[in-house]
Amino acid sequence: MQERAVLTRQAAILGAAKSFEKFGYSASLGTILQHAGVSKGAMYFHFASKEELAHAVIEAQHAMAMEGTRLVGTQSDTAVEMLVLVSQEMARQLVTEPIARGGMRLTMEIGSMQGPIEKPYLDWIDAIKEIALQAADDGDIVKGTDIDALARFIVGSFTGVQILSEMLTGRADLYERLNQMWNLVLPTIVHKSTLAHVMRLAALPPHKSEAATA
Amino acid sequence: MQERAVLTRQAAILGAAKSFEKFGYSASLGTILQHAGVSKGAMYFHFASKEELAHAVIEAQHAMAMEGTRLVGTQSDTAVEMLVLVSQEMARQLVTEPIARGGMRLTMEIGSMQGPIEKPYLDWIDAIKEIALQAADDGDIVKGTDIDALARFIVGSFTGVQILSEMLTGRADLYERLNQMWNLVLPTIVHKSTLAHVMRLAALPPHKSEAATA
Repeated sequence: MQERAVLTRQAAILGAAKSFEKFGYSASLGTILQHAGVSKGAMYFHFASKEELAHAVIEAQHAMAMEGTRLVGTQSDTAVEMLVLVSQEMARQLVTEPIARGGMRLTMEIGSMQGPIEKPYLDWIDAIKEIALQAADDGDIVKGTDIDALARFIVGSFTGVQILSEMLTGRADLYERLNQMWNLVLPTIVHKSTLAHVMRLAALPPHKSEAATA
Repeated sequence: MQERAVLTRQAAILGAAKSFEKFGYSASLGTILQHAGVSKGAMYFHFASKEELAHAVIEAQHAMAMEGTRLVGTQSDTAVEMLVLVSQEMARQLVTEPIARGGMRLTMEIGSMQGPIEKPYLDWIDAIKEIALQAADDGDIVKGTDIDALARFIVGSFTGVQILSEMLTGRADLYERLNQMWNLVLPTIVHKSTLAHVMRLAALPPHKSEAATA
């Protein structure tokens, strides 16, 4: 794709994400065009329908999450650190990135209307499982921990914690709730030798990652 | 209300719950009447609009959850047991009661479209907090545990665990995932003297409560 086309496509996705975040999947095309600052013709050059655009937002959110995970990996000294830092990066994306918020709302709404959108969750569980397996190999996870159950639980509880935080405070308390989640889980799973260090890390505000915004 | 009217109202709510569970808030009135087995006139005698009916389903779900909590209280020997048993009762309602499933789907959909439906979550957090405070008074919770944070986390993580279970397995693995949640949280919060007992309880299938179905 030419640079100009790439930029238009990114603007369309970002504008759509902002509209979907605000109005859900029922956001009108007019609203989306206004938020995106692109013409109707340019929009239809890239996306045949609102549905296609919505799925592009969900894909962009998923790509951002995976890219954030990769970047956090390069910034973490150990896998057990990465486990905490990745969750903070996911929280940061939800707090600061319209694509993450729009994608999350769409995933829930479209999933409820048309059947579950499983892939982002399955990929997320897999990514967390890889990190946790490495942390277990490093000896930083308590022996006998069910790593598959742990990965599913981290994704499940993060999902619920962020939904509750959005519902009750518009995500204003998300970092605090995430810290509390780790306070309640880390002592069960992290080996004593490294627990204090990881607990301190969980109490810090998230790094600023450089994950692209579209 | 006369007995006949009460029964019609209950049938309308149960039929609506089944329809909303299956088709979401966009379920047609025809579908709802078919599931409920009541006439259009009888339906309009009780509910002026689909919106009113939807909110009646959400209220019925909330009442069932609160009644289930109360019943579990009468069946639990200690508050720390009740903490686990209440969560299993919530899981049982979602697995076996159309009102719970329909109400949950509506809460998410209407909450996403019209703004968050906070009350059921706030009441649920309060109920869990009461139980956890009693368990702490009993000496069954590790000293220094932040009880408010614990109550919010239990509600948040249960919410996410059940959403993921619904999305990935239609709730077929909900009891197992709930058990894993407790395996990962109980060792942090429950005093050593009673941990083994509570962990065993968390591994059992849920009691059959007698919470009314409407």
